[in-house]
Amino acid sequence: MSDPVDLSLAQAHELAYTALMAQGISQPQTNAIADTITAAERDECKSHGLFRVPFYVKALQNPNINPGAEPEIKTLAPSVLHVDAHFGFAPLALQLSREPLIEMARSQGVAALCINNAYHIAALWPETEALAEQGLVAMAFTASMSSVAPAGGSKPLYGTNPMAFAWPRANHPPLVFDQASSVTARGEIQLHLRDGKPIPEGWAIDPQGNPTTDPEQGLAGAQLPFGGHKGAAISLMVELLAGALVGDVFSYEAKARDTGTGAPCGGEFILAIDPGRCVPGADRQAQLDHAEALFAKILEQEGTRLPSNRRFEARKRTVEQGISIPLSLYETIQKFLV
Amino acid sequence: MSDPVDLSLAQAHELAYTALMAQGISQPQTNAIADTITAAERDECKSHGLFRVPFYVKALQNPNINPGAEPEIKTLAPSVLHVDAHFGFAPLALQLSREPLIEMARSQGVAALCINNAYHIAALWPETEALAEQGLVAMAFTASMSSVAPAGGSKPLYGTNPMAFAWPRANHPPLVFDQASSVTARGEIQLHLRDGKPIPEGWAIDPQGNPTTDPEQGLAGAQLPFGGHKGAAISLMVELLAGALVGDVFSYEAKARDTGTGAPCGGEFILAIDPGRCVPGADRQAQLDHAEALFAKILEQEGTRLPSNRRFEARKRTVEQGISIPLSLYETIQKFLV
Repeated sequence: MSDPVDLSLAQAHELAYTALMAQGISQPQTNAIADTITAAERDECKSHGLFRVPFYVKALQNPNINPGAEPEIKTLAPSVLHVDAHFGFAPLALQLSREPLIEMARSQGVAALCINNAYHIAALWPETEALAEQGLVAMAFTASMSSVAPAGGSKPLYGTNPMAFAWPRANHPPLVFDQASSVTARGEIQLHLRDGKPIPEGWAIDPQGNPTTDPEQGLAGAQLPFGGHKGAAISLMVELLAGALVGDVFSYEAKARDTGTGAPCGGEFILAIDPGRCVPGADRQAQLDHAEALFAKILEQEGTRLPSNRRFEARKRTVEQGISIPLSLYETIQKFLV
Repeated sequence: MSDPVDLSLAQAHELAYTALMAQGISQPQTNAIADTITAAERDECKSHGLFRVPFYVKALQNPNINPGAEPEIKTLAPSVLHVDAHFGFAPLALQLSREPLIEMARSQGVAALCINNAYHIAALWPETEALAEQGLVAMAFTASMSSVAPAGGSKPLYGTNPMAFAWPRANHPPLVFDQASSVTARGEIQLHLRDGKPIPEGWAIDPQGNPTTDPEQGLAGAQLPFGGHKGAAISLMVELLAGALVGDVFSYEAKARDTGTGAPCGGEFILAIDPGRCVPGADRQAQLDHAEALFAKILEQEGTRLPSNRRFEARKRTVEQGISIPLSLYETIQKFLV
């Protein structure tokens, strides 16, 4: 094993930025992607950090992708914003629609953002957390590409379909969860295959629909939703919100459309709610204090932690000490610079 | 076993109505409750049908409940409605706020309904289904009383905290799911205790936090969320939406406030979204057709069914043939008539 490469967060941003710019992605698109990647590195969500740079580069081989796309924002109703990403990557569409969405949620009490035609290979927590940092409650939903069986079924139909939720906290980063509606990430099964290890029962079924602990069979078959039919119902909801509701594709259509570059293109649905507008008297502070009492009740039980707390602990470390990435990844990214 | 009592749906409504009127619940409150109970009988959701009449009657022993409460509806923001149930039962508050919510969702694109101070001992599918019958996408969340441990914890904190989702369908009742965020309903564990049967592993933990298959130990300990920490995250979200967001109590506070009558009093949060306002061009029919394509894809897999389909099949039967209830329940309800 060679030594990992140490980087400050600014250097991590610079590395992603220069590599993706060199590959022909427009400056605004690149900057938004580099922000997202750096946020993931900062929070030690390594699978969405610099590790993703090669995924973005590979996605460029897809002739349908537009690395110079300029997202177009429209107001469809007093409480509904729409952004057409025009087949660019999601981060810029999210970044440009953030302020209008926040304004709309504050003036209307609740606002929806419908995103179309975005290549989405990032997590959902950055956009929900950014809204909660502005004092809003946020939810986000996006479909991906078929890999999960519906309840009772045996073949891939749903994507891993994450949903995220964020709640604002005073003097503390927001409480955020961002979870796939599959038991586990597809990458986890791939890691087990690479390492020659069996997967736990309940993660996947083989192509015949039987339970399997063989990662190869599981990848050839279908992943399972978390919590049986209840997780499958969540996954179905995500398909409907990020697909039919916003006028975009379902996971099985994204899969059919994929050219082998692995980046799902589709919709995302985001809700932003101003808590102060949801109670008579608009005493936001009382609402936030009330939530803190619940969080304290959770934490007084041994063995508990709040969702996203690990990310915030990592953030404290990396902001001071920087991050490190494997030399092999660093060298791969360096090659994109030529 | 004595013969069950056969009733038409109109007779079921009449039975609930006369019994609850005789117990001193106001006419508007009673009528809304009887509608909800009859809808449950119609769909063979027996646990929310006439079986609940004694629960409503028992709740009246709670000095905090107001059986004559007149819900008060306010507009808090252009897209936020608020209804104070004034410590009456939830069904009337839901019924009276339905039309204003539908109007608001249609004009604004998305609308939120925040309900306070409602005694909630019914399911969430009736309110979400009613919104979807008007062409809206709906979500609903309500907390209950502590019985579920948080992720990693061992003591009851969350309620069974259901969330519901409904999607409109042309020429078909809406697709609806309404699911607790616990693995199973508390009543299921009680049934196992009554029948002297062990509960499956994963439903509950004993007071020391250890897995148990003993229903008595499970009831004394804590129920578990579905799907581990992911279901617990959903449950936490429900607490925040139906509690702090709408300015009402969390499940542990509802529990502390309970006088032993078992009816949780608290908040509910409902979102209504007009799909036609979420796409440029507002082609509602295309959105609904698109969703039907997904439903067909689900159903072409052997072993699958759509959420709520069992209810709709039951509905076809009961509308024609009526329902039956145990003689003992019929006699219990008859006693409330004096």
